[in-house]
Amino acid sequence: MTAQSAQKKNNQKKAKTAITPTREENFPEWYQNVIKAADMAENAPVRGCMIIKPYGYAVWENFQRELDRRIKDEGVKNAYFPLLIPLSYIAKEAEHIDGFAKECAVVTHHRLEAAPDGKGLVPAGELTEPMIIRPTSETIIGETIAKWVTSYRDLPLKLNQWANVMRWEMRPRLFLRTAEFLWQEGHNAFATAEESNADARRMLEVYAEFSRNVLAIPVIEGEKTPEERFPGAMATYTIEAILQDGKALQSGTSHDLGQTFSRSAGIRYQSQDGAEELAWTTSWGMSSRMVGGLIMTHGDDDGMQMPPKVAPHHVVIIPIVHDDGDRAKILDYAETLARRLKELNIRVEMDASDRKTPDKLWGAIKQGVPVRVEIGRREMEEGNVTHTRRDIGRDSKTTESTDAFCNKITAMLDGMQEEMYQAALTRTNAMLHDAKSLDEARQFFSEKSSIGQLRMDAAFLQEDAFEKLQKDFAVTPRCLPFADEGKKVIVGKAY
Amino acid sequence: MTAQSAQKKNNQKKAKTAITPTREENFPEWYQNVIKAADMAENAPVRGCMIIKPYGYAVWENFQRELDRRIKDEGVKNAYFPLLIPLSYIAKEAEHIDGFAKECAVVTHHRLEAAPDGKGLVPAGELTEPMIIRPTSETIIGETIAKWVTSYRDLPLKLNQWANVMRWEMRPRLFLRTAEFLWQEGHNAFATAEESNADARRMLEVYAEFSRNVLAIPVIEGEKTPEERFPGAMATYTIEAILQDGKALQSGTSHDLGQTFSRSAGIRYQSQDGAEELAWTTSWGMSSRMVGGLIMTHGDDDGMQMPPKVAPHHVVIIPIVHDDGDRAKILDYAETLARRLKELNIRVEMDASDRKTPDKLWGAIKQGVPVRVEIGRREMEEGNVTHTRRDIGRDSKTTESTDAFCNKITAMLDGMQEEMYQAALTRTNAMLHDAKSLDEARQFFSEKSSIGQLRMDAAFLQEDAFEKLQKDFAVTPRCLPFADEGKKVIVGKAY
Repeated sequence: MTAQSAQKKNNQKKAKTAITPTREENFPEWYQNVIKAADMAENAPVRGCMIIKPYGYAVWENFQRELDRRIKDEGVKNAYFPLLIPLSYIAKEAEHIDGFAKECAVVTHHRLEAAPDGKGLVPAGELTEPMIIRPTSETIIGETIAKWVTSYRDLPLKLNQWANVMRWEMRPRLFLRTAEFLWQEGHNAFATAEESNADARRMLEVYAEFSRNVLAIPVIEGEKTPEERFPGAMATYTIEAILQDGKALQSGTSHDLGQTFSRSAGIRYQSQDGAEELAWTTSWGMSSRMVGGLIMTHGDDDGMQMPPKVAPHHVVIIPIVHDDGDRAKILDYAETLARRLKELNIRVEMDASDRKTPDKLWGAIKQGVPVRVEIGRREMEEGNVTHTRRDIGRDSKTTESTDAFCNKITAMLDGMQEEMYQAALTRTNAMLHDAKSLDEARQFFSEKSSIGQLRMDAAFLQEDAFEKLQKDFAVTPRCLPFADEGKKVIVGKAY
Repeated sequence: MTAQSAQKKNNQKKAKTAITPTREENFPEWYQNVIKAADMAENAPVRGCMIIKPYGYAVWENFQRELDRRIKDEGVKNAYFPLLIPLSYIAKEAEHIDGFAKECAVVTHHRLEAAPDGKGLVPAGELTEPMIIRPTSETIIGETIAKWVTSYRDLPLKLNQWANVMRWEMRPRLFLRTAEFLWQEGHNAFATAEESNADARRMLEVYAEFSRNVLAIPVIEGEKTPEERFPGAMATYTIEAILQDGKALQSGTSHDLGQTFSRSAGIRYQSQDGAEELAWTTSWGMSSRMVGGLIMTHGDDDGMQMPPKVAPHHVVIIPIVHDDGDRAKILDYAETLARRLKELNIRVEMDASDRKTPDKLWGAIKQGVPVRVEIGRREMEEGNVTHTRRDIGRDSKTTESTDAFCNKITAMLDGMQEEMYQAALTRTNAMLHDAKSLDEARQFFSEKSSIGQLRMDAAFLQEDAFEKLQKDFAVTPRCLPFADEGKKVIVGKAY
């Protein structure tokens, strides 16, 4: 093969990816285009906000269902607290202000009225005290449970809410960083420091298990350095994912708040021996930014790949009709298959639209439906299905009996879930490099071809050269992994 | 019996109700106290807002799950749209402004900074355009789907979101009327007027079926008079419940919006024959105010009664230990029962706290748990359970074998659900009176003992005396019931 024909072949190969640019060519643009091609979300006309489209929201619903079950299994109860927080509450907790006050939406009026010049509407009814849209709810939940907790009998108190929150973002990015996002925030209160610390660690474990087994996203569990802690926390625990571009994504955090918020809100209880004590609290959250993490972990140059456990559809059935006389029979055959699969708790989508077959197939590929099934006249006549796995592609294309397919589909999806996790784990491990010195770290971050995070001696954190490293390369210490018992730190770029 | 002893007996009887005042004595106060006794919600420190406590939120979760399934069965897909709506969107739809502009939270700044005098924080970063917190989302969803819809192939488009919304309420009341509340809002678009009208009616039917079969709340289906329509709608359909105090509760509404919002947002599509057409839209919503409706429909002087389909717990198990030596065995027996019930998909709560038994029993009564089970030494030794129905009370107290109980519990709960609906229907029917003239209506509303709603000839709506009736007695036309084919109108007080 001549260089020219090799180049030509290469071009042809490139032309075949459903997403342009590819990940290698331009990762951020690839990301935006996968979201668009999979029809998951779009920028809202409201600055920094997004619209989560049905296919993206269905992922979030599966995420919620799976995580909610795990949270409830920990004895936590869901509740709902107000969207608006009085300014005075925020002002109470000094450290907290520094962390959040700079980026919140402020409500100052409660009415609109006609403008004096008669043109349009203007805010009216000024509030005596401005309120902010919750960026997080430690303050208002703290004020509330201070009223609920009076005795050691009221503890532990474990609450969670699924809610929207708002942080004014200057550089928004779909899912990963938007002014408004969806999340759950847990807020637990305990009688002792030991219990609250154990709880903060326990909830991090719940997040880690959920990330691995549901999202198929490998994560590193560890503790944040003091500078990276949640404002007001004694310790912040985190799970960090390493995405395909080598950047880290803080995927879930759990904070041991000590007595910071119980002191400012006055969460006091009478202990078993009659003494008045301050409670110890934790908070922990995971958000819709993880949908971005899913895409950046599992997407490829043909679009999204959905881990079966969060996939809106496990299987898409594509009826292929060449002769109109066959239509009714083929659709009927496809519907029968859909019913059988639904009985097996398989989430099935029937694509009987009038789009052309290649568009349907590519649509399923771009949306990352784990298994696509083609049903044509031949399949119908022979009692067969033709199925293809998204992760393997055409090499997995198999025609076999409907019975055989129905018997294996559940195991097939379970297998895909596990293989997707293993593939992501292999990629993640390959992007975690050891650096023996800060010079080695500088060397790594200064090379354009370097992808990933560095693991180095935690003692380096104390050196001035580390601060310089952070500044020069816009990297941050992601966490001190539990696995290294606080002796190592992971450093790199992050979303 | 002397008058004195009768009075005494009456007092004793009254003293036995768990809620004071009773419904008859003071319905509004009874309502607040049931919520408190059942631990469902409380007023938030934020004016007009509420905190939904775990037991109340669990009702909402069951509500959501049941209604969400029904909405999806109609081919509607969930999505999520921004909390904030730019002022200019609201200003576009003239009628809509009149309806909502007077009562919304306005965001004017996106930052807090230290006050010039150094004391506290003040709003900073004024927005070039103020935004309002959504009171409902027709405008922003309209603007969005105008971009999604280009061809007749894109229609119908059926979307729903579960969200918080905000309307500045001057006279807030837990669940029934709060500044922030939780709801679902559906927004559908169609190619023809016929389809959008049929859809608005269809979604009302979904609400009616849900109210009757899940909430056990009887409702009257009908159309609002033009004055009572949603701002901008061509027709508003409603389901109205009649609560125990005779007031109506608008329980769910479905609007045929015609082309009002498609015109202001520009939802245009190319028809099959190539012409550019405006779409026709509907919107429909049901909210957390229905939790208030549940209480005012099913609560009694001992507290709440939960219809099994939304009850957080179907069964509460109360272990009764008189001798500490029995504790482990009794708890073990109770746990085994709990596991068996859970396998039958029964939602079970074990009350193994150190509260006294009467407190546990009354707690379960006030929270309206459908069935309470007492397990003492005797039950344990004989392989029995002692169970009591909330709706019937002590007359239903039965001791029988665990097997017999497990075999009947599902049917028992189904039966209770149906009986609660029938009981509510009987009460509702008794509160719906016919008035043959406006004089008769004045007579009815002027008597303090009159409870309920009036049904009268819809022709009266045109008379000046009707307007006077509305003003004098603070009553409104609730709806023109479908059952009367628009010839009758229901009139009365409402929440």
